[in-house]
Amino acid sequence: MKSLHIKLAAALMAVCLVAAVAAAQAADPLPSWNDGQAKQAILSFVNQITDSSRPTYVRAEERIATFDQDGTLWVEHPLYSQGLFALDRVAELAPKHPEWKEEHPFKAVLTGDSEALAKFSEQDWLRIVAATQTGMTTAEFPVIVQNWLAKAKHPRFKRPYTDLVYLPMLELMAYLRANGFKTYIVTGGGQEFVRAYAEQIYGIPPEQVVGSSTAVKYEYQDGKPVLMREPKVQLITNHAGKAVGINLFIGKRPYAAFGNSDGDREMLEWTTTGDGARIGMLVLHDDAEREYAYGPALGLPDTKVGSFPEALYDEARSKGWFVISMKKDWKVIFPFEAK
Amino acid sequence: MKSLHIKLAAALMAVCLVAAVAAAQAADPLPSWNDGQAKQAILSFVNQITDSSRPTYVRAEERIATFDQDGTLWVEHPLYSQGLFALDRVAELAPKHPEWKEEHPFKAVLTGDSEALAKFSEQDWLRIVAATQTGMTTAEFPVIVQNWLAKAKHPRFKRPYTDLVYLPMLELMAYLRANGFKTYIVTGGGQEFVRAYAEQIYGIPPEQVVGSSTAVKYEYQDGKPVLMREPKVQLITNHAGKAVGINLFIGKRPYAAFGNSDGDREMLEWTTTGDGARIGMLVLHDDAEREYAYGPALGLPDTKVGSFPEALYDEARSKGWFVISMKKDWKVIFPFEAK
Repeated sequence: MKSLHIKLAAALMAVCLVAAVAAAQAADPLPSWNDGQAKQAILSFVNQITDSSRPTYVRAEERIATFDQDGTLWVEHPLYSQGLFALDRVAELAPKHPEWKEEHPFKAVLTGDSEALAKFSEQDWLRIVAATQTGMTTAEFPVIVQNWLAKAKHPRFKRPYTDLVYLPMLELMAYLRANGFKTYIVTGGGQEFVRAYAEQIYGIPPEQVVGSSTAVKYEYQDGKPVLMREPKVQLITNHAGKAVGINLFIGKRPYAAFGNSDGDREMLEWTTTGDGARIGMLVLHDDAEREYAYGPALGLPDTKVGSFPEALYDEARSKGWFVISMKKDWKVIFPFEAK
Repeated sequence: MKSLHIKLAAALMAVCLVAAVAAAQAADPLPSWNDGQAKQAILSFVNQITDSSRPTYVRAEERIATFDQDGTLWVEHPLYSQGLFALDRVAELAPKHPEWKEEHPFKAVLTGDSEALAKFSEQDWLRIVAATQTGMTTAEFPVIVQNWLAKAKHPRFKRPYTDLVYLPMLELMAYLRANGFKTYIVTGGGQEFVRAYAEQIYGIPPEQVVGSSTAVKYEYQDGKPVLMREPKVQLITNHAGKAVGINLFIGKRPYAAFGNSDGDREMLEWTTTGDGARIGMLVLHDDAEREYAYGPALGLPDTKVGSFPEALYDEARSKGWFVISMKKDWKVIFPFEAK
């Protein structure tokens, strides 16, 4: 029952949030955005696409907008939420795996060795994901994720991760949808992880979540078929894999793409090199006070979590991709601030 | 210009077809179906799903219906259209590949050795597909398919393959969509091959076509990104791969699934073992006069193209999957007969 109450509460919250966003948009479609280059570019782009008298007009069926998830739609520091989920799962499953006490990378997690953790390779993370996020069915996995999301709190904000979505991006998604766009999440993170909350938080259904996936096996339990998550990578939809994933899952080239790191580079390139009016935007985390500030564009060291190297900044400038300053472009960052 | 005219004509035809189907449905939603168990089962199922006073009611967002393509939506004999396309491509590309004259399986194709051709293994077919349907970009491939479809004719019916769709299934898709269902094609055939015509013929957009795929590589041509089709299998969505593909691409369990062969077995099983009202149906090709008759259920030898073994027939009976008799259940088979 508890899980049902949580679901109902979350659903109600989502409805209220969507209603609030819709009401605010009646006057200004992007009320949490300060007037500036980024906001004007969005408004002008939508006009180019939807005004049937313009040569840049695009029929509704072709209006595709893709959004990266971590760092573009919600907070990704100090670590991707799926990473934090994996670490909590290691602790939870450790009693069943006494060998982990001596085994890298599990040992580092169990002893809280944050220095070793910061140096984890992709291979280390894949091992942790395989050990903690496979071996259950596709029906069981989202329940595990939802139960974690219902109790986990962000270490700095002391709030559920699902509270830490960016209100300006919720408005942007709602505005694009109101103008006939189909909005997709295209994440380097796990497709099934994001699907577990995307509909409630963003109004984005499972079939519009493109992400990395493990192989899945058709098996039987008590005579009924199940899909079992296997410890084997199937697709990685990051970097060039985002463009490949867009083609595989959507089969259409987006007109608008939003990201925040070098993992989004090819998605923006693929989108903005199409014909007609296209738009690519990168969120710059430059607001240490309200959220976080990181990356070389600010004279700060680059980070493995949401890397935004100088080369990407230069490329954005030379190719006309917009850089959204969280500090300057966003009046409000989180929905809870707006209340 | 010619290709544009063909496209316009095809689009116009599709619009007319959709309008004709809609008009006919005003009175009876399935006018090309004879009254019988199959038709009644469909009408009753839709009522169970859409009547909000019934415990089997399902909200529109969850209403998913999946359709196999070859043999379920259009003719698959004497050979899958993608196979015939591949054979024509071998002939077309042969001048650039003199070595094919002596090389299996190409030699059999070039010498018209139908006996050898009938014995091709899956490996042989994969080699032919790799040689004829990769090495071009994802933008070039559908144009090649569309140009082929515009001139290729079915050996028996002497009509374009796109004429050989089943009118009762067009009506069924339109009826389900009118009742809030999202209709998907889930084919063991090539996703990009089917996407090249599915929107014009069935009104099914690229993002609702699940199919087998080759790997695709992000590359540059003249400084612009392209997605290059690689001679490497990425996903096979047949048999259990259909259930896996449904989970990967849709992330929801269908309420209705339609197929015609053992490649659809797991899709029907996955669909009908879900909670609530679900329906699974198999088209039986038992009409040699108007279409084809094949398979052991009719006392005829099984075939590699659309295999419907006795075990599947028995399973359908024991699990309550409906078998649609083309001969008895369909008043009309092809749209051109209805004119």
